[in-house]
Amino acid sequence: MSNVGKLAIYPGTFDPITNGHLDIIQRAVNLFDRVMVGVTTNLAKTPLFSAQERVGMIQNSVSDMSSVAVEHFDGLLMDYAKKKKASVIIRGLRAITDFEFEFQMALVNRKLAENIVTVFLMPNEKYTYLNSTIVKEVAKFEGDVRSFVPKDVDDRLRKKFTHS
Amino acid sequence: MSNVGKLAIYPGTFDPITNGHLDIIQRAVNLFDRVMVGVTTNLAKTPLFSAQERVGMIQNSVSDMSSVAVEHFDGLLMDYAKKKKASVIIRGLRAITDFEFEFQMALVNRKLAENIVTVFLMPNEKYTYLNSTIVKEVAKFEGDVRSFVPKDVDDRLRKKFTHS
Amino acid sequence: MSNVGKLAIYPGTFDPITNGHLDIIQRAVNLFDRVMVGVTTNLAKTPLFSAQERVGMIQNSVSDMSSVAVEHFDGLLMDYAKKKKASVIIRGLRAITDFEFEFQMALVNRKLAENIVTVFLMPNEKYTYLNSTIVKEVAKFEGDVRSFVPKDVDDRLRKKFTHS
Amino acid sequence: MSNVGKLAIYPGTFDPITNGHLDIIQRAVNLFDRVMVGVTTNLAKTPLFSAQERVGMIQNSVSDMSSVAVEHFDGLLMDYAKKKKASVIIRGLRAITDFEFEFQMALVNRKLAENIVTVFLMPNEKYTYLNSTIVKEVAKFEGDVRSFVPKDVDDRLRKKFTHS
Amino acid sequence: MSNVGKLAIYPGTFDPITNGHLDIIQRAVNLFDRVMVGVTTNLAKTPLFSAQERVGMIQNSVSDMSSVAVEHFDGLLMDYAKKKKASVIIRGLRAITDFEFEFQMALVNRKLAENIVTVFLMPNEKYTYLNSTIVKEVAKFEGDVRSFVPKDVDDRLRKKFTHS
Amino acid sequence: MSNVGKLAIYPGTFDPITNGHLDIIQRAVNLFDRVMVGVTTNLAKTPLFSAQERVGMIQNSVSDMSSVAVEHFDGLLMDYAKKKKASVIIRGLRAITDFEFEFQMALVNRKLAENIVTVFLMPNEKYTYLNSTIVKEVAKFEGDVRSFVPKDVDDRLRKKFTHS
Repeated sequence: MSNVGKLAIYPGTFDPITNGHLDIIQRAVNLFDRVMVGVTTNLAKTPLFSAQERVGMIQNSVSDMSSVAVEHFDGLLMDYAKKKKASVIIRGLRAITDFEFEFQMALVNRKLAENIVTVFLMPNEKYTYLNSTIVKEVAKFEGDVRSFVPKDVDDRLRKKFTHS
Repeated sequence: MSNVGKLAIYPGTFDPITNGHLDIIQRAVNLFDRVMVGVTTNLAKTPLFSAQERVGMIQNSVSDMSSVAVEHFDGLLMDYAKKKKASVIIRGLRAITDFEFEFQMALVNRKLAENIVTVFLMPNEKYTYLNSTIVKEVAKFEGDVRSFVPKDVDDRLRKKFTHS
Repeated sequence: MSNVGKLAIYPGTFDPITNGHLDIIQRAVNLFDRVMVGVTTNLAKTPLFSAQERVGMIQNSVSDMSSVAVEHFDGLLMDYAKKKKASVIIRGLRAITDFEFEFQMALVNRKLAENIVTVFLMPNEKYTYLNSTIVKEVAKFEGDVRSFVPKDVDDRLRKKFTHS
Repeated sequence: MSNVGKLAIYPGTFDPITNGHLDIIQRAVNLFDRVMVGVTTNLAKTPLFSAQERVGMIQNSVSDMSSVAVEHFDGLLMDYAKKKKASVIIRGLRAITDFEFEFQMALVNRKLAENIVTVFLMPNEKYTYLNSTIVKEVAKFEGDVRSFVPKDVDDRLRKKFTHS
Repeated sequence: MSNVGKLAIYPGTFDPITNGHLDIIQRAVNLFDRVMVGVTTNLAKTPLFSAQERVGMIQNSVSDMSSVAVEHFDGLLMDYAKKKKASVIIRGLRAITDFEFEFQMALVNRKLAENIVTVFLMPNEKYTYLNSTIVKEVAKFEGDVRSFVPKDVDDRLRKKFTHS
Repeated sequence: MSNVGKLAIYPGTFDPITNGHLDIIQRAVNLFDRVMVGVTTNLAKTPLFSAQERVGMIQNSVSDMSSVAVEHFDGLLMDYAKKKKASVIIRGLRAITDFEFEFQMALVNRKLAENIVTVFLMPNEKYTYLNSTIVKEVAKFEGDVRSFVPKDVDDRLRKKFTHS
């Protein structure tokens, strides 16, 4: 990932990354010079995968996109965005409940860093109702999630739920 | 409950069953040959009533409907539905937030078992804003829930909150 | 279409029928003994296709489904449903705005004919945002609608907009 | 209607008044000293009943509520409200689509008259999906609307649709 | 706060109070003779501030409004409202998800105390997406929340997160 | 407006342009090399201002933004976008009803031109409930719209409604 042009940050918990997230990353790549996938800590709940595992799964999924990098960050998104000199925050919009939460976050983020614009992208309609929680729910009972996540993530989910 | 014709499963936590759930069951009875109320385990939170208690309260409430049976099941809904050779999943639709969650579940369920159709029924408008959580919240503070649940459930809620 | 078993009516303007409508009809066929597609007159706006043309396009699209019939009806849906001795009204649910309108109609219909149950089906997610209006909008400007409607409908749309 | 205390205006087209509107008026009467039902002209569509007929039907429906008056007004709601020295605008909130439109109007009204507060009331849940348009739709085809409107309105609807 | 006229209760967790809450209180003051801000215990989660701290912060924020009082209460809102002889419950409405939860609560509350009317007020649009949770999230990472809360609350948030 | 870099099209009826539209244009300017405001014909209703007037008002409003151009176009948005070699379609997202319509359009547009990405931007919260229709409604009755539109638009609205 070169160091010039506009940087867009795509933040999230990614526990784990799904095909819907990858669809958004692909769109962002077409729009912005560099895309940083920022893996956050969700303080409200213990993730299934460690931050290191989550970063690793994303790296495997985006290895063919040269303008994308992945890293973990702590603290407030907008502090991280300022430190990275990002111009854009990318968010995927799927459903109404997303919509309200995202607007709330975008409002606060705007107050915290006025020059960083939040941009919403719409995933392909086949991912409209897909999220990480539902993937874990299905995988936990050994349901088939291969159409929802990359192969590597599917493998890790199987191991996770066989071991536990 | 005879063993022929189309089987519809009405899955849920039913912690406890409300008059809104019963309204949906009554509609389902008019539509399908057999209705199985499938009592699931909600892994995300500890129920107020045990699975056995929840099954018992439903059985008391549907004792006059000969085509309805009740049982507890573990694991993925669609695995259970396939095992029972069900043709239909019944879901009640009340509010917008239901709507999104239900669509998400129906999408995943369709991927897992293509031939089982999810059917949405609308309860009577007087139950539009009724759910088990709010019933427990009111009962906990000794509020009157007799217009929201069957008499047997009201009795058990009183005992539960007096004992605790 | 034989004359026994439960009859479900799928009412609509169908100006013209889309692949989303066909997806709902296919699901209804799996659930109910007989399905009647009821083509209504929308008094609020002049249709692009006459009632006869709309019935014809649907008949061509469902010719391989032996339990489906198509006809035009005037007046109140519930009067028509009673006359046909239908047990079920089928409605497709795609989006939030559908949801509210459908609930409103279902409420009124229930008051008018208590024993006829409205059943909501969810189309495949690829049809979530498809409707007849948008198909006409695209076709009018000679955009390609072949992935949205049956071939016969595509042909008729081209003729319509070439002639006008 | 005496001339002291807080005046609340309940504006609308009321073409015709329904039991849902009456439910809101009854609640408003319990909250505010005086309630003025303000019958507006909806420029976007020709009403079924003249302004005079609409005022008359409301007057018949509220004749037993001494703190309620009814009148027709032209022009901008907030100009009318200022002229009447109203403190409050009453709006009924039923559904999500109401919600957005109402918020939009309340925003603009606040800019136009900062000291007049818009207050939202929720009708009984049995009126959640009721509105004047659906009442007219049903009455037009001689459907029974007696559970949706006062008796006098039912009579006038019958006459309207028999004569036309 | 004198003891005559209509009492409106504005209930909430207020953990902590925000400028959006104050905006609603100010509107309520213009409408009703007396306003009681009722600080509840949210059993679902441990608050950041004790009930006493939350009452104190509100008292500091409303010290110039003579018709407003603040107190903590336990148990069911409607039992508290009856004990205080309140006529009105005040709720702020910001977003769609609020809307559904509020309607659900209002329904139940109406069953529990038929004569107490729930009134919804809309905050200024600049507070549309503001709530206590987001304020705490930002303050925890030492983000600037001075445009979201009164100065006293900002001070206490800083102390809270520096000490912990 | 130079001829290099990514072109983003911001389409709309703009009858007339509001401060909310200008807020979106300003954000788009910060994100993309060139922004074309594309003024469309809304076939469903007669505009208040001619296409030429609408283009003129926008040009006056964006005269200080060198990377923005304005023009009128006919036909399908995606045909226009391809002709201009645009990479991006910009849409403002304010409310839930916007959300559904926008998703529907974005779906169809994606089918028609797969490589052009629709990007959603959120206006400042003070414009959340602002649109052209409400501006015209207020102006028609000589209400004050100066906080909603640029001065030039305010002048033209006054003339329009005085002359008519």
